[in-house]
Amino acid sequence: MLLSKSFNKINIKRLSTLKKKIMTCKKLAPVGITDKNINENVVKLQYAVRGPIPSRAIEIEKDLKNKKEGKYAFSRTIRANIGDAQAMGQKPFTYVRQMISAISLLSLESNHREALNYLPSDVVLRAKEIVDSMDGKSMGAYTNSTGIARISQNVQTYIHERDAKGHGELSKDIQNILKNQSESISGVVDMDDGFQSEHVFLSAGASAAIRTMLTLLIGSKNVKQSGIMIPVPQYPLYSASIDEYNMKSIPYYLNESNGWSMEIEELERSLEQHKAKCTPRAIVVINPGNPTGNVLTLENLVKIVQFAYKNNLIILSDEVYQYNVYDKNLKFYSMKSVVKELGLPITLASFHSISKGYFGECGLRGGYCELYNASDFTWNMIKKVLSVNLCPSTISQSVIDLLVNPPKKDEISFNQYYNDMDAVLSELKLKAQMVTDKLNEIEGITCNPVKGAMYAFPQIQIPEKAILKAKELKVEPDSLYCMELLENHGVCVVPGSGFLQKPDTYHFRTTILPPKELLTEMLEIIKQFHYEFTKKYA
Amino acid sequence: MLLSKSFNKINIKRLSTLKKKIMTCKKLAPVGITDKNINENVVKLQYAVRGPIPSRAIEIEKDLKNKKEGKYAFSRTIRANIGDAQAMGQKPFTYVRQMISAISLLSLESNHREALNYLPSDVVLRAKEIVDSMDGKSMGAYTNSTGIARISQNVQTYIHERDAKGHGELSKDIQNILKNQSESISGVVDMDDGFQSEHVFLSAGASAAIRTMLTLLIGSKNVKQSGIMIPVPQYPLYSASIDEYNMKSIPYYLNESNGWSMEIEELERSLEQHKAKCTPRAIVVINPGNPTGNVLTLENLVKIVQFAYKNNLIILSDEVYQYNVYDKNLKFYSMKSVVKELGLPITLASFHSISKGYFGECGLRGGYCELYNASDFTWNMIKKVLSVNLCPSTISQSVIDLLVNPPKKDEISFNQYYNDMDAVLSELKLKAQMVTDKLNEIEGITCNPVKGAMYAFPQIQIPEKAILKAKELKVEPDSLYCMELLENHGVCVVPGSGFLQKPDTYHFRTTILPPKELLTEMLEIIKQFHYEFTKKYA
Repeated sequence: MLLSKSFNKINIKRLSTLKKKIMTCKKLAPVGITDKNINENVVKLQYAVRGPIPSRAIEIEKDLKNKKEGKYAFSRTIRANIGDAQAMGQKPFTYVRQMISAISLLSLESNHREALNYLPSDVVLRAKEIVDSMDGKSMGAYTNSTGIARISQNVQTYIHERDAKGHGELSKDIQNILKNQSESISGVVDMDDGFQSEHVFLSAGASAAIRTMLTLLIGSKNVKQSGIMIPVPQYPLYSASIDEYNMKSIPYYLNESNGWSMEIEELERSLEQHKAKCTPRAIVVINPGNPTGNVLTLENLVKIVQFAYKNNLIILSDEVYQYNVYDKNLKFYSMKSVVKELGLPITLASFHSISKGYFGECGLRGGYCELYNASDFTWNMIKKVLSVNLCPSTISQSVIDLLVNPPKKDEISFNQYYNDMDAVLSELKLKAQMVTDKLNEIEGITCNPVKGAMYAFPQIQIPEKAILKAKELKVEPDSLYCMELLENHGVCVVPGSGFLQKPDTYHFRTTILPPKELLTEMLEIIKQFHYEFTKKYA
Repeated sequence: MLLSKSFNKINIKRLSTLKKKIMTCKKLAPVGITDKNINENVVKLQYAVRGPIPSRAIEIEKDLKNKKEGKYAFSRTIRANIGDAQAMGQKPFTYVRQMISAISLLSLESNHREALNYLPSDVVLRAKEIVDSMDGKSMGAYTNSTGIARISQNVQTYIHERDAKGHGELSKDIQNILKNQSESISGVVDMDDGFQSEHVFLSAGASAAIRTMLTLLIGSKNVKQSGIMIPVPQYPLYSASIDEYNMKSIPYYLNESNGWSMEIEELERSLEQHKAKCTPRAIVVINPGNPTGNVLTLENLVKIVQFAYKNNLIILSDEVYQYNVYDKNLKFYSMKSVVKELGLPITLASFHSISKGYFGECGLRGGYCELYNASDFTWNMIKKVLSVNLCPSTISQSVIDLLVNPPKKDEISFNQYYNDMDAVLSELKLKAQMVTDKLNEIEGITCNPVKGAMYAFPQIQIPEKAILKAKELKVEPDSLYCMELLENHGVCVVPGSGFLQKPDTYHFRTTILPPKELLTEMLEIIKQFHYEFTKKYA
């Protein structure tokens, strides 16, 4: 642009030519994207964990960095809005990081990769195996759209082994559950139907895989909108994607007064209420629960599968917290083991990730989806959709390989790997308890125990005056609460309304991830703030 | 599943219980995704570079690996179907790989990162800078959805410096072009409108960024479908995404007989023909061209911007091959420099990638989009859409940083970096010439010179009988051609129909990426095959 600041040495003659040109122009109307012509679904979608409150936290952090501390009553923020373990100081696994380093160096000429000699030999050996499975023996090449074949095979093996453990007991328990049902559904799959098939695709995080599956379910032009059953509260990826894809949410409430349990009567009520307005297509189950921290029982899972089968819904099972169970009386059961045991020919997509669990490698964007009981048609369509995005990152794929295929007992890195795992999981367990205890000490806050995942979702009492104030400001009452907590104390948590919640109840979601001392401080701040807030709006 | 192969030690009592249960069941109808209830746009979409012919090549490779060589007249395939340089043996940049290694190790305790001492000190220093800009000083943390702020700033600086070079001349040339136009459009942007804004977001490859931009343009429920102008031939990402998003393609033909030039009369004709059936929203420009290998002239670019502005179209400028210009008489001009110089308030999104150019790091999935002249509203909507996918991989972001901010003259890695660059670009230049020459030697094949990008898109004469045969097999004639080339000789190229082409013309796309000797062999094979094919169907 001739008159811009960047290029101001302008030739006067040229300027006069330009001026003449301008004279001949009509008023320059802008050509762009406006609120009138944008995709309306994009306007609708909301993603609270990165919404207005976390955005404001980023602004405040910028101010603090630029030494504008005077504006705030605190000198640092505490970020508990997102399940981002390493941002909160969790250490990465030594094995994972050494492996990435080795994979990266292996394609170089030997004189440029001397550093390899200073990595454990088992790491280098394994890195070589991984690199050898890549085209051109380099992580710089594209892979299959579904991921490197060898790695998806390792994922399948991992799932088989995981589900074989304790299978006898699971099987017995399910039989008992079935016996006690007045009207039970189970069966034997006709293998000729292409059921009992198992397919795995790797993805840029579980989110990407979930969105791929939802894409397949978008209703066609001349049919009713597709309906997706989602728990409430839920992780906003679901509500946001459902809005973006012009589908309908069919929300079912988890029972807060019973530890956020999932109740079949509620599933039935919700489906009944919504089914006239849309075509129900799938049920989303998040287990362990985000944001609720609950862990589903086996009986629950059996009933969910039966409900889904009876109502012609495929199952999307979000299992990214499968390693994050802290209550010693509870156990994670994979949805697949239940579907398999029940023998129902129902398509199940289950999801896992390197971002949560113990690796906490959110920044690398790696996940996978296993499809069970999917027809060849479905699988071919998935492959086609995935191909448009080419492939997930080779590094994230490699880290999935490490997740499903950890070092063996006789390998140098074995102890290091399991020490790193213990360190992460025992710390999380401790913090889950700490958050539960401390929140329940606060008058006006009640919180179900954090039994799994990485979050607490306490219910907060909000005074009538604050609710009126929020109405006036056109925000949700718990948004007002969280915003004041942030502005006054620098603590960033996400309002419950961002996850959906029962009408006239208010919550927030906090992670349990800040380092212990900071977490203690944060919980103290929340206690003090809740008192202040209640007093202010009394 | 009780009767499955996996768990066959079944308790007889349980089996009988199960059998009773089954008796109470009606026939077990499968619940899944079928051709009746799938998203119809997914069925429609086609992505040729990963379509049936490359899929068949993967099958053949599997066979060859499993020593089923007897089935084929060759013992290895030659993959020229996708722009995947490192899969074809291109060496990665030493600097890039050492940097990834260092970034990965830096978050470990000092006793686990001894290898760092054996990487160049400037690499480690720079890696530390990058890691310090990440949350928790670790690549394991999420970043802003638009990418790490410091890196997007570096991208902006890079774009400014790139466009400042030769700006004086560009400016003069554009003035001359304008002077010679009978009715020229240019102007001065009113800065108050939020125009002249510059925003950058990082992405999982240019493809992801392009799809994000297209998402914004999807038409709302009660309006006409959005139309996107695309060149023909085009890269199938565009046609596939347009189909997936239920938009309409508005194809404009590049002029093959004039070196695949872009002609404004053709843009006008095409728009005129399609505008009643859809709402035209954007024009896609691929420069340098994929699959055509052409490079647009400055005059062309000026006219495209004027055309877009006049017709209320935003511009999507795919510039991933901006470093890949082989004809010394041609030059890459960024669309932004042209829009800026013309002073028109038109939103431009331009795209770049670490997958092409000289890095060729396809597997890492890194790209960026610069938005120029976009309103705050547009930018906020983009941020919201991006937030649902959390963020691009931290490693890919870091490699973008290296692309836009290479080592300085006084740094240890400076020479290595530019040697690596010369090696890649001079080899590509040589191969571009080689492919052009050899293809034109074949009777029945004509090929415009490969002036840029990484592909040749020769026109092939297909005998009438082969056309009839293809019709019989319900495939495109050039698909038949490419399939026979693959089955008989193991050479994998993509049929022109996958990129769209003028009716009754036939082409294929080959990359210029195989190593020189293999490329020579491949071109010989194509020559021989074309002769055979012509004879077979004479």
